[in-house]
Amino acid sequence: MTTSNALVVTAEPGVPFVGTVREVDAPVADVYRAFIEPALVRQWMGPRDLEMDIDSWDARPGGSWAYTHIDPSGGRYGFRGVFHDVVENKSITQTFEFDGYPGHVSLERVEFEDLGGHTRIVNHSVFQSVEDRDGMVSSGMEQGVREGYERLEELLSAAPRPAGA
Amino acid sequence: MTTSNALVVTAEPGVPFVGTVREVDAPVADVYRAFIEPALVRQWMGPRDLEMDIDSWDARPGGSWAYTHIDPSGGRYGFRGVFHDVVENKSITQTFEFDGYPGHVSLERVEFEDLGGHTRIVNHSVFQSVEDRDGMVSSGMEQGVREGYERLEELLSAAPRPAGA
Repeated sequence: MTTSNALVVTAEPGVPFVGTVREVDAPVADVYRAFIEPALVRQWMGPRDLEMDIDSWDARPGGSWAYTHIDPSGGRYGFRGVFHDVVENKSITQTFEFDGYPGHVSLERVEFEDLGGHTRIVNHSVFQSVEDRDGMVSSGMEQGVREGYERLEELLSAAPRPAGA
Repeated sequence: MTTSNALVVTAEPGVPFVGTVREVDAPVADVYRAFIEPALVRQWMGPRDLEMDIDSWDARPGGSWAYTHIDPSGGRYGFRGVFHDVVENKSITQTFEFDGYPGHVSLERVEFEDLGGHTRIVNHSVFQSVEDRDGMVSSGMEQGVREGYERLEELLSAAPRPAGA
């Protein structure tokens, strides 16, 4: 395992897109599972200093998701959406809304590229306006995503392997 | 009832948005109902020369929808998505995907503005790329939307009213 898997964030001016690319030193099936199973999701998604309470995480087409991030002083931040598509070991497409900014929804696609024991995670989010995108970027999104992927890699490297592997 | 309710379509270059605005001469509750109830939806949504087979239209947060448009020569075009949010007489937010262009999803918001017996329908769609948006616009979207709203107005003006109204 290396520590050179840098997060690359793209947010060009004037368009409502945010892209991130991050490789992780884990097989694609393990990475996919960590996005699908709520017991795993809650261990890595988001910044290190937030607890995550998952109300629902029904990762199938038409399934809903909702969780609350809780900061060290007890502040609560709710997020929710629906899964448009979930394709095993390939991609997830879902909507995203922050309860603190209601009526502003984004559409997020995560793709998993199998690099043979390693995985490239390619995320593309599109917002309903450039202003919404700019607001998300300036809210500290990048730090949350970076720490989240670091935690994901720690979680996956700690996972028990089959005997003999 | 007038025939002066023009459709206004906005698709600025370089951004992945399409906006439409259309007023209809019907109360907001009737218009909302025509977007929510599949037995009504199938009578107006889309161009005049297509039949609409609705497989599912579960208009609530987390509900799925899917339909097939059938052209006069029997050609079939499937569309599907999920409802992110459905707010009575106010707005609907849903994903949209054409089966013939899989993996390209858009996010659509429809807002209903109550003008007192009349209703302004404001639609804002955002695509995952400017190319996807351009493809949708060049596919004849505007004609389909225009004819759909004409059919919607015809449907609502033909609806039975309570006795004495």
